[in-house]
Amino acid sequence: METLRLALGSRAYPIHIGAGALDDAELYRPHLAAGRVAVVTNAVVAPLYLQRVKGALARAGAREILEVLVEDGEQAKSWAALERVFDALLGARLGRDGVIAALGGGVVGDLAGFAAAVYQRGIAYLQLPTTLLAQVDSSVGGKTAVNHARGKNMLGAFHQPRAVIADVGTLATLPPRELRAGIAEVIKHGFALDAALVAWLEANMERLLAREPAALAHAVRRSCELKAEVVAADEREAGRRALLNFGHTFGHAIEAGSGYGAWLHGEAVAAGMVMAAGLSVRAGLLAEADAQRLRRLVARAGLPVEGPALSPERYLELMAGDKKSAGGQIRFVLLEAVGRAVLRGDWDEQDVRAAIVACAPGAAGAPA
Amino acid sequence: METLRLALGSRAYPIHIGAGALDDAELYRPHLAAGRVAVVTNAVVAPLYLQRVKGALARAGAREILEVLVEDGEQAKSWAALERVFDALLGARLGRDGVIAALGGGVVGDLAGFAAAVYQRGIAYLQLPTTLLAQVDSSVGGKTAVNHARGKNMLGAFHQPRAVIADVGTLATLPPRELRAGIAEVIKHGFALDAALVAWLEANMERLLAREPAALAHAVRRSCELKAEVVAADEREAGRRALLNFGHTFGHAIEAGSGYGAWLHGEAVAAGMVMAAGLSVRAGLLAEADAQRLRRLVARAGLPVEGPALSPERYLELMAGDKKSAGGQIRFVLLEAVGRAVLRGDWDEQDVRAAIVACAPGAAGAPA
Repeated sequence: METLRLALGSRAYPIHIGAGALDDAELYRPHLAAGRVAVVTNAVVAPLYLQRVKGALARAGAREILEVLVEDGEQAKSWAALERVFDALLGARLGRDGVIAALGGGVVGDLAGFAAAVYQRGIAYLQLPTTLLAQVDSSVGGKTAVNHARGKNMLGAFHQPRAVIADVGTLATLPPRELRAGIAEVIKHGFALDAALVAWLEANMERLLAREPAALAHAVRRSCELKAEVVAADEREAGRRALLNFGHTFGHAIEAGSGYGAWLHGEAVAAGMVMAAGLSVRAGLLAEADAQRLRRLVARAGLPVEGPALSPERYLELMAGDKKSAGGQIRFVLLEAVGRAVLRGDWDEQDVRAAIVACAPGAAGAPA
Repeated sequence: METLRLALGSRAYPIHIGAGALDDAELYRPHLAAGRVAVVTNAVVAPLYLQRVKGALARAGAREILEVLVEDGEQAKSWAALERVFDALLGARLGRDGVIAALGGGVVGDLAGFAAAVYQRGIAYLQLPTTLLAQVDSSVGGKTAVNHARGKNMLGAFHQPRAVIADVGTLATLPPRELRAGIAEVIKHGFALDAALVAWLEANMERLLAREPAALAHAVRRSCELKAEVVAADEREAGRRALLNFGHTFGHAIEAGSGYGAWLHGEAVAAGMVMAAGLSVRAGLLAEADAQRLRRLVARAGLPVEGPALSPERYLELMAGDKKSAGGQIRFVLLEAVGRAVLRGDWDEQDVRAAIVACAPGAAGAPA
């Protein structure tokens, strides 16, 4: 077991990483307050881990454990699904001193975290991520949200958990496609922030895909370290934190344009990173060889290097609604080098169109 | 024009109070950022003040002004109404640098403030209160919320506005019932926090009801001073701020038990304060004469001194779901003296039943 700390003053919290962490009652005990816990999870995760979590919570002193099941998949991140969570919490009369435990992947964490942010104007919650994507990225940093038809994560809150308990043992049962989607965010952390992590990924991709525990633990730990450092310096994304959105502007367009759920978030980010690297080259910021390193690593992870065949106009339209756009102007996270991302609002539309067409075969001929 | 300041460090903000304040472009100018503003209001308020506000916003440099109309009345404080606000904001592509202006009473302020709290994980907003209740209470302090069938204000956020612009000139057009509902919160501030305000109300109730500008201005200013001081000391209601909920535990039960909208919030608080004072007497905290002072003042304001004829069981059931309940235990704000409220979790259920029955004729015989 290893414990990192996200330094946020009075709202600082531990990130526990290790096999079997979900069973460790001591990790839950400091956070149970009045002893009422609502575990939010879904029908895929519940059969695998819910009983173990309930056992640990009971040993930690929980007096009452409520189960709230949400839909599986990105469609659970909806305004309507959130209302159903509230119906369940209020039906059970969970008080302001209750605690929500988000048991599952990024969707469950984003939805349950947002529920905790606004339920009775905000209650405590724990992140219990069971996917690689959630462990390396979404469970850390307090971003919570649901989607809207007009854009991903459009409604949400910054609400930090009281603890993250990342049991890397859960990755053994993860469907291969979800494992790869998580690796996309590890690649993102490397290319945006840490050239050494990129080199490590190049040397260890096969070990990661084979789920070697030491390799998984390294990927999770290093990702959490990088993310914790960035979030501690810029919790509400006034500056540096935006760099963690590398690949996400194109990626959100891919997700929204394909209908949420068709692409996994990590898959969309993977193709989005390839597009963003292509744009970085066209903007004269990045060497073509470095963009190729990204593309090769994405391909080796079994992730898509190409987006769906939407027209460049459609991509631009979807991206103009992105939260990172300011005054209607899209801002891209681009690369200056491997491990060094920058946020740029000045770009040439022809470059963007070319970057899209180069990475989305058929896009040039797609209806606008 | 008078300007108070709510001291909250980097989130401190001004509270401007004065006749004609809505027309003063200089009050808006510092807060317009990228120049896109969404005015959230309703069909009752819009014909009275929307053009004036738009004029002032335009003079202050707003480039684009979006109008978002919500329903009139408490039913607008719903999850569904909030979604419609988001549809409008996203349909117009309001960015993270946009500003919401809440033009109206407490319902519009609570709804639009909550929308601002979660839209794209939080954007700036201005409170432009046009009712006495909103000017003396709900527009100040950053509490935002919508209702749920199981309880009032159950879903919401603490999200401070960038400024409050309280134009006491708007009170001239306020329906008499709404004026009285606002006076209920002034009475609350007095009995909970400031004996001098109670004495002033006893001496000036007729001037207030006659809408003498100087009396209205005093009531608004003194209420805002008291509230600003309490919120600055305890923004998130860890302690002292809870005292501002005097009358609200019973009051929320009255609102929920009667169906939202049947009672105005201020009316329910008025009857709720009489119940809470009665409970304070029964608990041996307050002199009967002081409870009678409250009852007389409420009656002089033309506000109800009695609640609806729900059974004591129904009141208790509704109150058990109140946000102030901790671990299922209802906590009441009681009075120790005029101007001195306390939060109490220890009380005798027979006292509570007796306080309800004494203030809700028919309650004793109502079906459980």
